[in-house]
Formats: sequence, C-alpha cells, structure tokens
Amino acid sequence: MDSCLVMVLILVCWTMAKAESNVSDGLTLESVRDSLIRQEDTIVFCLIERARFPSNAPAYDPSYFSNPGSYGSLVEFVVKQTEAIQAKAGRYENPEEHPFFPDHLPPSQAPPHKFPRLLHPAAMFVNVNKIIWDVYFNKLLPLFVAPGDDGNYASTAAHDLDCLQALSRRIHYGKLVAEVKFRGERKDYEPAIRSRDKKTLMDLLTDQNVEEAVKRRVAKKAMTFGQEVKLGDGSKGKYKVDPAIVSRLYGEWVIPLTKDVEVEYLLHRLD
Amino acid sequence: MDSCLVMVLILVCWTMAKAESNVSDGLTLESVRDSLIRQEDTIVFCLIERARFPSNAPAYDPSYFSNPGSYGSLVEFVVKQTEAIQAKAGRYENPEEHPFFPDHLPPSQAPPHKFPRLLHPAAMFVNVNKIIWDVYFNKLLPLFVAPGDDGNYASTAAHDLDCLQALSRRIHYGKLVAEVKFRGERKDYEPAIRSRDKKTLMDLLTDQNVEEAVKRRVAKKAMTFGQEVKLGDGSKGKYKVDPAIVSRLYGEWVIPLTKDVEVEYLLHRLD
Repeated sequence: MDSCLVMVLILVCWTMAKAESNVSDGLTLESVRDSLIRQEDTIVFCLIERARFPSNAPAYDPSYFSNPGSYGSLVEFVVKQTEAIQAKAGRYENPEEHPFFPDHLPPSQAPPHKFPRLLHPAAMFVNVNKIIWDVYFNKLLPLFVAPGDDGNYASTAAHDLDCLQALSRRIHYGKLVAEVKFRGERKDYEPAIRSRDKKTLMDLLTDQNVEEAVKRRVAKKAMTFGQEVKLGDGSKGKYKVDPAIVSRLYGEWVIPLTKDVEVEYLLHRLD
Repeated sequence: MDSCLVMVLILVCWTMAKAESNVSDGLTLESVRDSLIRQEDTIVFCLIERARFPSNAPAYDPSYFSNPGSYGSLVEFVVKQTEAIQAKAGRYENPEEHPFFPDHLPPSQAPPHKFPRLLHPAAMFVNVNKIIWDVYFNKLLPLFVAPGDDGNYASTAAHDLDCLQALSRRIHYGKLVAEVKFRGERKDYEPAIRSRDKKTLMDLLTDQNVEEAVKRRVAKKAMTFGQEVKLGDGSKGKYKVDPAIVSRLYGEWVIPLTKDVEVEYLLHRLD
C-alpha cells in the first residue's frame, strides 16, 4: 500500500508539473501577439461601421424605448437580448468571451465544445466590462460619431454591440498576455504576486516601445481601412474615423485597461 | 359647390403630380451611387470578419443544435431570434431593411420614426432574401472560409448575419436604383413596363462599363482592407479574403440579383 501511495503521489506531482508547464497547449508569445494584432483590424472595422450612423441619441435615452419587462434604453435592450441569444448558442462557453450582462444569462443549448484550457482557473473571473461600457458610451462614442438622428436605432445598437464585444475581447485578452508572460518569467513575477505588489507587476508588464508602436499601427490601420478606395490613384482625403482618435482609444483606454486585467489576473495566478 | 369641387380636384392633381416628381425628397443618382459605394466597404469588412472563423460545420447542421420550440440549425436560430429583437427595436420600419424570416416577426416597440418615403408603395414588397440566403450559404461561404472547426459557432452565426444583412441591404437597394433611373428616363421605361418587357428593362438598366468598374473596385477594396498592415513598408502578402472571390461575388450574384430586384420593382412601378 505504501509504495502504491508513493506511486500515486509521484504521478499526481508529475501531472501537476506538466499542467503547470503547459508546453503543449499552444500558448506562445507569438500566438498571443498575432491575435492582438488581428483584433486591431476588427476594432477599426467596428468603429468605421458604427460611424456610418450619426449619434442617434434616442437609442441611449431610457425614456424613449418601452419594452415590457425591461427598463432601460433601446441599446441596453438590444445588447441584453442579443447576449441572451448568443449565450443559448454557446458564445460564453469560450473563456475569451465576456458578457456585459452576466446576470440571468440563459445556459448554452449547444453540446459542450472543448475549448483549450489556457488560463489559471482561480484567475479567470476577472471582468472589466462595466468600465468598458462606461468608456465606450461616455468617452469614446462622442469622439467619433457625427451629431444627428437618422432613425436607425436598432442598427446603431447592433453596431454598438459589435464595438463593445470587440473591445471586450481585446481587453480581456490581457489574461492570456499575463499567462504567457508569467510562464516565461515566473521567477520575476512570483515574488511580486506573493507580496501583492501591483506597481512591480505593472512595471514588469509595461513596454513603452511596444505600446507606442501599437498606437502608431492602429492609426495606420484607421487610415488604410477608413480611406475612400477609388480606381486609379485617387484614394486620398478624409478618413471615416479619425486615426488620431483610434490611437487615443488605444493609448488612453485599451492598453491601460488590458494592463489592469493583466495585473488583476496575476494577483490570482498563484491562488 | 361645383367650383369648390373643381378646386379640390385641382389641388389633388397638383399634390399627386408633386408627389410623383418628388423633386425635394433628396433621391438623386449621386446619393444612390454614394450609398452603393459605401456599402461595398461594409460587405468587404463583413466577409473579412467572417473569415476569421473556419467553416464550423456544426453551426449549419440541424441535428447539432436543439432549441425547444425551434427546428433548425444554430445559425437559423441566431438569425431568427436576432431579427426578432431588432424588429422590436424598430429595424424593419426602415424600408431599406428586409428580414430573412419575415413571418411572425414581432412589431416594433419603438415610437415611429419618419423615414423618407422614396419608393413607390405598390412596388416596395419585392424581397429576394430566400435567394440571398441560398447563395450565401451554399455558394459564397465555401469559397472564402478555411475548412475547420474552432467551436465558436455563436460568433460565426453572428458574423453570418452581418454578411447576410449587408448583402440584403445592397441588393434591395436596387429598388432605389430603379426608382431614380425611372424618374430620370420615365419616357424610356414606361412603355417597357406597360408591355411587361423584362428584356428591354434589363437592357435599360445595364451598363457593362459601370459593372466592370464595380468588380475591379471591390477587388481593390478586398486588397486594401484585407492586407496585413505593418509599420514601415512591409504591407504585402496574403489577403484575408481573396480579392478575386469578392469580384466574383459581385459579378455572379450581387449585380445580377440587384438587377432582378430593379426589374421586379419597375414591373410594379405603375401599379
């Protein structure tokens, strides 16, 4: 019995060590970077598409829209209800997706799918969607949509949801960024995590040069994707969304919020 | 009383003539063209975003997804239910929007909005969404998504809906194209409409040079929006959606279906 117990313990330790090193789960700094870069395109497309519509204030006015059983604006109604449908279709089974209205979300009706388990379970709960909602509607949106009202509130709300989901996915991808950095430099991160030293964690996660490059690249994407493409060479002129605003979106909100997610995730990485 | 009746009749005739000429409703060949060109960007963005996901066959398999009360695939469920939410938020009050599942669509719960009345009421009913659905899922989709299964069926379905809505809006915009052309060359169109001469109507509506230019322009857009944008000059390489397929989408399906909508609309333009 004793030797059997030792065998079992060895096996358990080996399994845990293997799970910790996670060499074979495909998470690499390169795969994380590629995804972040691809997600920039999605965010720029979403902003350009939302900018097709003017501000459309009634969509955000709780007194405008009356839906029995729901109290809120038209955009709240569209986001909540669409999230419920997508939840039934299994969207939030993927740990990369985070709902804006997680309460009373219906369960998935799709058979379970085996998404790769890349994150540390005790640190997965981090969700900053309340802040993203506030930043998007109160700070970002007024910067890039023209004033006006064309009556297309449902379409406007659908595009707001696209923007919110794209930003949320990008910012919560910070969990994967943190995980891959933690695995690579565990000996640097562990002491700061144990002493709950947010400042050191933030310093470890920050690379000013990379951040500046990201801001320049998203501005270039806003120019490239937001230009009026014509046959011949005449593709100059006004952009559909001001590249400086996309750069500012990243510098003021996307990058800092991603780092907040990273720090919060790391603080629970050894739980 | 007689002179009063004459006055009323004159007023009625004048009002009808004014409504017919519609000089002040803002519909011009230029505004229609600008919208069609802008919608090309939307369609290309939607295709690029759908191409982020592989084919994801289970999303289209009716035996995979079981939702009480609905019989169909996961994508059918997501499209039907999302259309119902957007209908409540007033999407289909805008005559430019056409649902894929118009039966049992709930009424709008938003206060009515005065959308411009540009179309001839008796010809507004034209809806080719059944054909668009078939073309999109059975012909187009297999051409531009990679084989594979990443489990993100809900997101995939949401992007399919975006593509369907963008294509539907573009193709049904044919009603506005037909209306503006009819107003401009009424004496050419009227005899063909009265004799139900589809061939002549199709000839009147067709401009090979414009069609070729559109096909070249959408291919250029697929190159511009589907490239990998890098800092520096290194933006060459693979496109996210093959520009030749976008050109083919327009040549084989979008342009012909738009013209079908135009002819069908015109056949009822004098009803």
